Amino acid sequence: MIQDDNTSPPSTLLDVAREAGVSPSTVSRILNGTAKVSDDKRLAVMAAIARTHFAPNQMAQALKKGRSNTIGIIVQDISSPFFDESLRGVDDGLKGTGYASVIVSGHWNADEEADRIRLLLARKVDGIILLSGRMSDETVLQFSTHKPIVSTGRSLHTRSALGFKLDNEDGAYRAVRHLIELGHRRIAFISGPENNIDADERLAGYTRALREADLELDPKLIVGGNFIESGGLLAMNHLFETHQQFSAVFAANDQSAYGARLCLYRKGIRVPDDISLVGFDDLPGSSYTTPPLTTIRQPLYEIGLISTNALLRLINGEPVENQVPPLELIVRETTRRVR
Amino acid sequence: MIQDDNTSPPSTLLDVAREAGVSPSTVSRILNGTAKVSDDKRLAVMAAIARTHFAPNQMAQALKKGRSNTIGIIVQDISSPFFDESLRGVDDGLKGTGYASVIVSGHWNADEEADRIRLLLARKVDGIILLSGRMSDETVLQFSTHKPIVSTGRSLHTRSALGFKLDNEDGAYRAVRHLIELGHRRIAFISGPENNIDADERLAGYTRALREADLELDPKLIVGGNFIESGGLLAMNHLFETHQQFSAVFAANDQSAYGARLCLYRKGIRVPDDISLVGFDDLPGSSYTTPPLTTIRQPLYEIGLISTNALLRLINGEPVENQVPPLELIVRETTRRVR
Repeated sequence: MIQDDNTSPPSTLLDVAREAGVSPSTVSRILNGTAKVSDDKRLAVMAAIARTHFAPNQMAQALKKGRSNTIGIIVQDISSPFFDESLRGVDDGLKGTGYASVIVSGHWNADEEADRIRLLLARKVDGIILLSGRMSDETVLQFSTHKPIVSTGRSLHTRSALGFKLDNEDGAYRAVRHLIELGHRRIAFISGPENNIDADERLAGYTRALREADLELDPKLIVGGNFIESGGLLAMNHLFETHQQFSAVFAANDQSAYGARLCLYRKGIRVPDDISLVGFDDLPGSSYTTPPLTTIRQPLYEIGLISTNALLRLINGEPVENQVPPLELIVRETTRRVR
Repeated sequence: MIQDDNTSPPSTLLDVAREAGVSPSTVSRILNGTAKVSDDKRLAVMAAIARTHFAPNQMAQALKKGRSNTIGIIVQDISSPFFDESLRGVDDGLKGTGYASVIVSGHWNADEEADRIRLLLARKVDGIILLSGRMSDETVLQFSTHKPIVSTGRSLHTRSALGFKLDNEDGAYRAVRHLIELGHRRIAFISGPENNIDADERLAGYTRALREADLELDPKLIVGGNFIESGGLLAMNHLFETHQQFSAVFAANDQSAYGARLCLYRKGIRVPDDISLVGFDDLPGSSYTTPPLTTIRQPLYEIGLISTNALLRLINGEPVENQVPPLELIVRETTRRVR
């Protein structure tokens, strides 16, 4: 097997010192610019840095501040397009900062989340971003005594823990309000999974919009989904099998709307001519459904970006705000005025 | 702030020894079952393990074998549905093994990939899975002298490096063969990005299928895409703007096919009644397009699973094979016999 310095594990300041034949503190002082050393020594250290592929800025900073320049990200489902968008925001937020990220999955399980946080702390991350999750706020606050944590889906604001919470109730209210303004009176709702706070809030927004417009809240128009395509398809089928009358459907997320759309296609029901359809999330794929999906845009990418900026500020002990961008109605081509 | 042992960083064997008031080697011997120690000491150690939330099996094994029970995964684009499927396979492959994974992104850049491998090695992973990537085979082999590496998209087979390579040329050949068998004679091709080996191989498969069937290879029917939706839409538009005649389109991946599908929808051209469409990948969303997409199934999930099993075997010094599951034609509803 070929051996090459270029593929060695990252060299440490100690490796540089050994290679240069000087003390580690001499290397440190040269890197900090505080050293009064001979040109010979300085040249020897610079040559050693080059030979050992030592990254002085990053490592010197890590040395000074005890940092690894790595942050840990906890997602709940690594294969979900929902988390993809936030991860893209995190990725862009780290560009040019010298920080790298490592991502682990909590699998929607509070115990596993806690295990993963311990793993990240053991791997010496400088801070953690927790995307969604089942852990209690109290546990997040406790972990944040070790390293700063930024979490989505909760309201926290301490010196080492920050939460970003989107207003799901308001988003759902806007979606249903849009349908009501188009003249729809019988609006079905494909819900999210049970015991899911986002799903509960979206149901609350649906209910409020109907109540405000003095429309009947018919429980038979509310069918259970599970935030994935297959659940949306089954829910839509159920509405037809139970012979419900409706002119519009609000799905609690885009993936449910995709499933509902396929059910309508199979039955030869046109969207939006016969039935209007609204989703929630604005996943990248929603611009390319046929027709493109009217939906509530969650600023998932922005949340990833803002969380990253906030975490880096917390790591540096700087003040942060937890303002979140609003949810937005994106009118595309699956909704139209009722006939 | 509330402090609680449950949120502390993972305790080490040293923490347990300190807590129990015994030597670390006593703890080690109790964990290995080789200790002849008093019941008092044993009870003290067990109580200390409970108090410090020490995970004896994992840590004892790590101690014995110098392992961290963590593997590193390098993806190229954390927000791509293509990588999601393989990551889901990795996730399932690790279930019940006691291993956790950390994921980093190489951003389709060979230098960044190498940086990320160094970062993972510094974080003491036991092995690495490299999904796709731009790094040379030689560099992968060099890194594998430090820790075992399993990589997709290349053919390698040493004691510490294994590659899994799918036959893209054959997959593309099958897609076009399917269209030819349905009677299509003018088949357009939306290609992948330039200088991409998968894209080149798919073009080669398209060419071979046409040549074998004695069909004309018309360069005007080959239009450039970029493996994402917007490129597929533009490519399709280009075919119409240049007034090409064709009855079927083979898109080099599913995302390109989604974009092409939207272009056809906008123009009121029916799929498959007017134009047949085939993709490549079989992303989860392809079962829910309207109509559901005929495509070549890449065993992305299986590749993640198989790579994980192979890596764990390499870590344990066990022999592995690099057989890959075949690519498969999935006939759904976007293709039909030419009229």
